[in-house]
Amino acid sequence: MPEQKQLHLTAFMRPVSLHTGAWRYPGSYPDANFNLSHLKSFIQKLEAAKFDAFFMADHLAVLNMPVEALKRSHTVTSFEPFTLLSALSVVTEKIGLAATASTTYDEPYHIARRFASLDHLSNGRAAWNIVTTGNPESAKNFGLDEHVQHSDRYKRAREFYDVVTGLWDSFADDAFLRDQESGVYFDPGKMHVLDHRGEELKVRGPLNIARPVQGWPVIVQAGQSEPGRQLAGETAEAVFCSPRDLDAARALYADIKGRAVAVGRERDHLRILPAALVVIGDSVEEARAKRLELDRLVHYDSAIASLSVALGTDAAGFEPDAPLPVDIPETNASKTSRESVLRLAEAENLTVRQLALRYGGYSGLAFVGTPDTVADEMSVWLREEAADGFTVVFPFLPQGLDDVVQRLVPVLQERGVFRKEYQGSTLREHLGLPRPGNRFFS
Amino acid sequence: MPEQKQLHLTAFMRPVSLHTGAWRYPGSYPDANFNLSHLKSFIQKLEAAKFDAFFMADHLAVLNMPVEALKRSHTVTSFEPFTLLSALSVVTEKIGLAATASTTYDEPYHIARRFASLDHLSNGRAAWNIVTTGNPESAKNFGLDEHVQHSDRYKRAREFYDVVTGLWDSFADDAFLRDQESGVYFDPGKMHVLDHRGEELKVRGPLNIARPVQGWPVIVQAGQSEPGRQLAGETAEAVFCSPRDLDAARALYADIKGRAVAVGRERDHLRILPAALVVIGDSVEEARAKRLELDRLVHYDSAIASLSVALGTDAAGFEPDAPLPVDIPETNASKTSRESVLRLAEAENLTVRQLALRYGGYSGLAFVGTPDTVADEMSVWLREEAADGFTVVFPFLPQGLDDVVQRLVPVLQERGVFRKEYQGSTLREHLGLPRPGNRFFS
Repeated sequence: MPEQKQLHLTAFMRPVSLHTGAWRYPGSYPDANFNLSHLKSFIQKLEAAKFDAFFMADHLAVLNMPVEALKRSHTVTSFEPFTLLSALSVVTEKIGLAATASTTYDEPYHIARRFASLDHLSNGRAAWNIVTTGNPESAKNFGLDEHVQHSDRYKRAREFYDVVTGLWDSFADDAFLRDQESGVYFDPGKMHVLDHRGEELKVRGPLNIARPVQGWPVIVQAGQSEPGRQLAGETAEAVFCSPRDLDAARALYADIKGRAVAVGRERDHLRILPAALVVIGDSVEEARAKRLELDRLVHYDSAIASLSVALGTDAAGFEPDAPLPVDIPETNASKTSRESVLRLAEAENLTVRQLALRYGGYSGLAFVGTPDTVADEMSVWLREEAADGFTVVFPFLPQGLDDVVQRLVPVLQERGVFRKEYQGSTLREHLGLPRPGNRFFS
Repeated sequence: MPEQKQLHLTAFMRPVSLHTGAWRYPGSYPDANFNLSHLKSFIQKLEAAKFDAFFMADHLAVLNMPVEALKRSHTVTSFEPFTLLSALSVVTEKIGLAATASTTYDEPYHIARRFASLDHLSNGRAAWNIVTTGNPESAKNFGLDEHVQHSDRYKRAREFYDVVTGLWDSFADDAFLRDQESGVYFDPGKMHVLDHRGEELKVRGPLNIARPVQGWPVIVQAGQSEPGRQLAGETAEAVFCSPRDLDAARALYADIKGRAVAVGRERDHLRILPAALVVIGDSVEEARAKRLELDRLVHYDSAIASLSVALGTDAAGFEPDAPLPVDIPETNASKTSRESVLRLAEAENLTVRQLALRYGGYSGLAFVGTPDTVADEMSVWLREEAADGFTVVFPFLPQGLDDVVQRLVPVLQERGVFRKEYQGSTLREHLGLPRPGNRFFS
């Protein structure tokens, strides 16, 4: 019998829930994004459940939204990723620590150095989620009036990756002798000066820190645009993505793995981990009811705006507690998105209000059911080559996280699709990724 | 009787010793700069001794030195300040955490955010050592061929300070309501958009993190040049400096405090903390012998180069084990520095070799003696208004640090010039500094 394929699970933890109503759910911690003791308890529970990693998205601005929506957002204040993950590295031993860092609004020397430092502090648990920063508000915090063009951002990102990985290779793994007798601290023949002079970047090096424990921290990538997929195929070792259903996920999976193989990489050296909201109940009905209760905590004014965007038509005049009108016009705005709203309305028999609250809360991929039905769905995605695992989005915390680690994970473990113990100690080992060689020293 | 003036003590911890022979001293940890468990034990001992702060200098490059000196340097690999201090914040409760960050090679939004995050993680213990980065090698790691001019660096630094402190004031202290019932997370009337448009910087804001616990992290400054002193007078709350003796320190103290008063600040709202190597022995002779033993661990080739610089003349041809020649010519290079070499040679009756090793090791201010003689000297500096305390440089670790915390500190405490317990919980409280008001919200 062939060995059972294994799921990888990372936890989406900035914000701790992407659902905009999460902080209002009964029993939740309203300050969960910004309270170190809560975050410590979350990561320790995730480590006890043997999750691969704790994942911090990031924004370099207060997001631009209407003040009525902004004032209701639980994400406005949060810790900066490197300071938080470094603090959490001290209270954990095995779980990976993934930080988002921008190639558009930061410098490769800083990025290389901070990830190397986090990797050393955590004994090989760091991952870099490469983003080019899509939010135009960020540009204004970094001296620009306009956002950097998409194609220019990706061109810089590709070169930035070469520079950062080159800086990580500044020293051979065995460069540091620390010989008290002779007084030689390191072998200068094992130090490489990068002296990069490219189209976008000029960086001399060497980096002022020893080579990371993992050689290079794990490379994560999230873009789904054409240049984003190509960057992922060429460089990413884990991909965070948001396909809307199984078919879309299979296509994305095949596309990105294909791009990796086309540039000579191993198919298994890239893990595809779609984001999925997971809501667990005693029955499917109870889980759905929990989700509807959560959706009800979204403010209607901002919710109806989100539904209007998804439909491509102004929904503010629709009767809130009736079904969607049957004659909604097709527009150029977003055909795929409109169709998925109509499908959802029919499948779950939702009113305009319920649909609006869904789109204003979290409208991405969701697994809502019992531990067994969710484990079934996850296994299908794994078997069908739609995913190598998931980036789990919690609906509310702590309860939604507790449900996953106490109820879903044991079922996955019993079925033999998720580890009962960590086999290695680095994040690369958890993900089954090789340690990269040093390009300057063999 | 007037209240006894109190010393403030911070520990210079990057590198853990500035003395280039420190890592070779018998019993020392050769990897002390880059071993988290050692650094944890150091900071916990410093906290038990009630030190004000743990101070991380920084470099944004591997320093440019001849390879024979470089390969002997224990500072080439070290943790990055924010990642290390965040990790150490979790294993301590009271001691301040001071990080160096450059205004020349970083962005104010990043700097403001990281210090705010560290201040929240540590419950109000962060300090920002503002540097303009004097090392020309750093420029080459950040896209430039030449270093930014001194005056341009200070102009940018002054504006950078205004932007960072303005970003820290983005939210009123009571902006976050987190009212689960009404769904209002924060009061948008208590959020300020900075929209800074200056000569050097353009930054919109607001910062995406709540106002720091201390209002603003403590501002530290180290420059001793004319613009450095002026920046300190206008902005610094603690000054790290390197006067060579009591007279020079008194002049510097009066000058910087005078500049602060001239711009309307309180004289006591700025603490002047000269760096001082502290070597403790059972007798003055034994302490001096320890220092000579430490100096002997410096490599002669790099040592004689340092002495040549200090003398302003090539010392490589001098007889190593004889006194300095009497006919050393005066040059334009550095009259003050040459005279201090001659004074030192006479005072301690040192040979060329011993002088060279002193200059190659650590040639700044040093207190070398018994706990009582060192406490006497420190008390004189405090009384004579040459210092409000010291930035203690350890000769070697752990022993040199243990000598200070176990032998010197108890003597200072018995004399009533140093705290026996922390009175407050934030670094501002340790240093007797006020919490700044928010410039946009009263």
